[in-house]
Amino acid sequence: MLDATSSYNPMDRRITVDDRTGQRIVPDTARRSENRYGNRPTMKDVAARAGVGLKTVSRVVNGESGVTPDTERRVQEAIEALGFRRNDSARVLRKGRTASVGLVLEDLADPFYGPLSRAVEEVARAHGALLINGSSAEDPDREQELVLALCARRVDGLVVIPAGDDHRYLEPEIKAGVATVFVDRPAGRIDADVVLSDSFGGARDGIAHLIAHGHRRIGFIGDMPRIHTAAERLRGYRAAMEDAGIPVEESWISLGVTDPERVRRAAEEMLSGTTPVTAIFAGNNRVTVTVVRVLAEHDRPVALVGFDDFELADLLDPGVTVIAQDAAALGRTAAERLFRQLDGSLITPERIELPTRLIARGSGELAPAD
Amino acid sequence: MLDATSSYNPMDRRITVDDRTGQRIVPDTARRSENRYGNRPTMKDVAARAGVGLKTVSRVVNGESGVTPDTERRVQEAIEALGFRRNDSARVLRKGRTASVGLVLEDLADPFYGPLSRAVEEVARAHGALLINGSSAEDPDREQELVLALCARRVDGLVVIPAGDDHRYLEPEIKAGVATVFVDRPAGRIDADVVLSDSFGGARDGIAHLIAHGHRRIGFIGDMPRIHTAAERLRGYRAAMEDAGIPVEESWISLGVTDPERVRRAAEEMLSGTTPVTAIFAGNNRVTVTVVRVLAEHDRPVALVGFDDFELADLLDPGVTVIAQDAAALGRTAAERLFRQLDGSLITPERIELPTRLIARGSGELAPAD
Repeated sequence: MLDATSSYNPMDRRITVDDRTGQRIVPDTARRSENRYGNRPTMKDVAARAGVGLKTVSRVVNGESGVTPDTERRVQEAIEALGFRRNDSARVLRKGRTASVGLVLEDLADPFYGPLSRAVEEVARAHGALLINGSSAEDPDREQELVLALCARRVDGLVVIPAGDDHRYLEPEIKAGVATVFVDRPAGRIDADVVLSDSFGGARDGIAHLIAHGHRRIGFIGDMPRIHTAAERLRGYRAAMEDAGIPVEESWISLGVTDPERVRRAAEEMLSGTTPVTAIFAGNNRVTVTVVRVLAEHDRPVALVGFDDFELADLLDPGVTVIAQDAAALGRTAAERLFRQLDGSLITPERIELPTRLIARGSGELAPAD
Repeated sequence: MLDATSSYNPMDRRITVDDRTGQRIVPDTARRSENRYGNRPTMKDVAARAGVGLKTVSRVVNGESGVTPDTERRVQEAIEALGFRRNDSARVLRKGRTASVGLVLEDLADPFYGPLSRAVEEVARAHGALLINGSSAEDPDREQELVLALCARRVDGLVVIPAGDDHRYLEPEIKAGVATVFVDRPAGRIDADVVLSDSFGGARDGIAHLIAHGHRRIGFIGDMPRIHTAAERLRGYRAAMEDAGIPVEESWISLGVTDPERVRRAAEEMLSGTTPVTAIFAGNNRVTVTVVRVLAEHDRPVALVGFDDFELADLLDPGVTVIAQDAAALGRTAAERLFRQLDGSLITPERIELPTRLIARGSGELAPAD
């Protein structure tokens, strides 16, 4: 039991003082948060931990001579343990440094990321920070290279649409104070803020909509299964089919890259043969635009629901029924959490899921042709 | 006259040695190229020019004490004259530095820039460099802030879609060795590599196409007139009308921001009244998609030609006739010139203009409704 004298701050009972040692006792979550979003370790911290002088640390960091291998090893260990990074740009720019945050996208040419990027940029600007973008081109190695390059260029925080599924490489950066939010897809193997759309629920709703309009043979064309959103949407497809008691034939499912040739081939296969599908669910906007093209050349009407809204979807004939994500809200929510991390008001990483919305425009309401 | 002993390098007669002083004499163009794309000046160069020791330069650069105001002024003058920048990131990363180039866009959400960005990225990647993007949001101050922030973060080169019309702020960076190429719009008040589409010729062709299909009352809805591409396209409109002997009524021309509300109002005004236009030329893809929407609600058919191709333009009814730019070729050409600057093989800044292409799809071939 705690009394007034043992309480470090009577307004905050979570932090207490050990009577014997005078040490502050911080509960686990709060201590973790200090590690996550706290101040960067300094050269002084490295010197203290390695038990050497500041000048020695400086020599090791600058690759200068005059340090014994054993001392260098001790300093390197301290650097690693503390997650120390030389903050050179900050030094150069300290007389008028511009704060900056980084955004790592998956594909610069996917229009889904346009409003998302712009929303992140608007929030950054409102906080007086510049936004710097880069693209992983769906390559985990490239994602890591880009993230670390942005950290080396002293971004204060990062919004990441991950290509990879192991983000432990980010731990030293997060420990050193780089705010980090994952968006569109979750982080892998680290505890991080994540902002997602409800891919599972959205796809399930879209399939249920097609079933409600009389379809049973429904095709699913999606992105590569290692991508979280693709896997979740497929899970939504299977759940809706199971709910309706429709056994899924594996020939109705096609996963892979979203380039037009692959998607076209997949759609044409599903639409041919003796028991063709009567409806297609397109796993994202890149898939949808190609399927729209294939269906425009097809003689029988085929129903279509696409994940993601896209420009002019309502002006096509028929208008394309979509499961719309709010890409701007994803970007805005992620960026706002980033700045809350940076101002210290956000402590515990969370997973936030934004709802999707079915917009019926005609293509998803076509009855089965047979 | 030069003999073998006075020639510094017999393979390259451009460079000679002064017999009296031993100084190398470099012809003007080559000297300029050394200034533009040569090596960055070092702290040693600053020290030599200021007539002080290296330690003194280091003190001034790092803002340390122990330097008299007079000496500090001399060092600052030398720094300015030489265009010296502390290359800190390079030092931090020297054991495995990733080269990087920056791309400054105008709007992250304009799909025109998607293929352009991706092309720049592909060229950068082929050269082992990362691409870092940022958006000026059509604000000249923001452009400058972003460009200088990228330079401070040690990009090796910059591809800039400029928002402003005065780029003298970039001169010290260019002098210090930052490769620079402007794309989509020219640089202002500096001598720089520029890669453009033929906006004038493209618009002139589009208007001539409408005239050939019987139109005389042709509206022009474009971006803000201070934007180079908008002004050039308007000039193309006027030239084609003049070539055909059609006097232009000023009510047929509307320039301004490309947000849907402004464009919708402009289109509706041109289409109403006693002598409405029978055709509209849309100055870019942002304008076109809104005009498509207005025309879909309009009772009489109105011809439309849009500058820029856009996704699904061929699947609308009627298909939208466009003046297509090759956005990927713009990005690729600019990025390739950037790396030729960096490898020293490109010396003289040039202005390159890529042709446009008219794609007839139906909307531009409609006859006048009256």
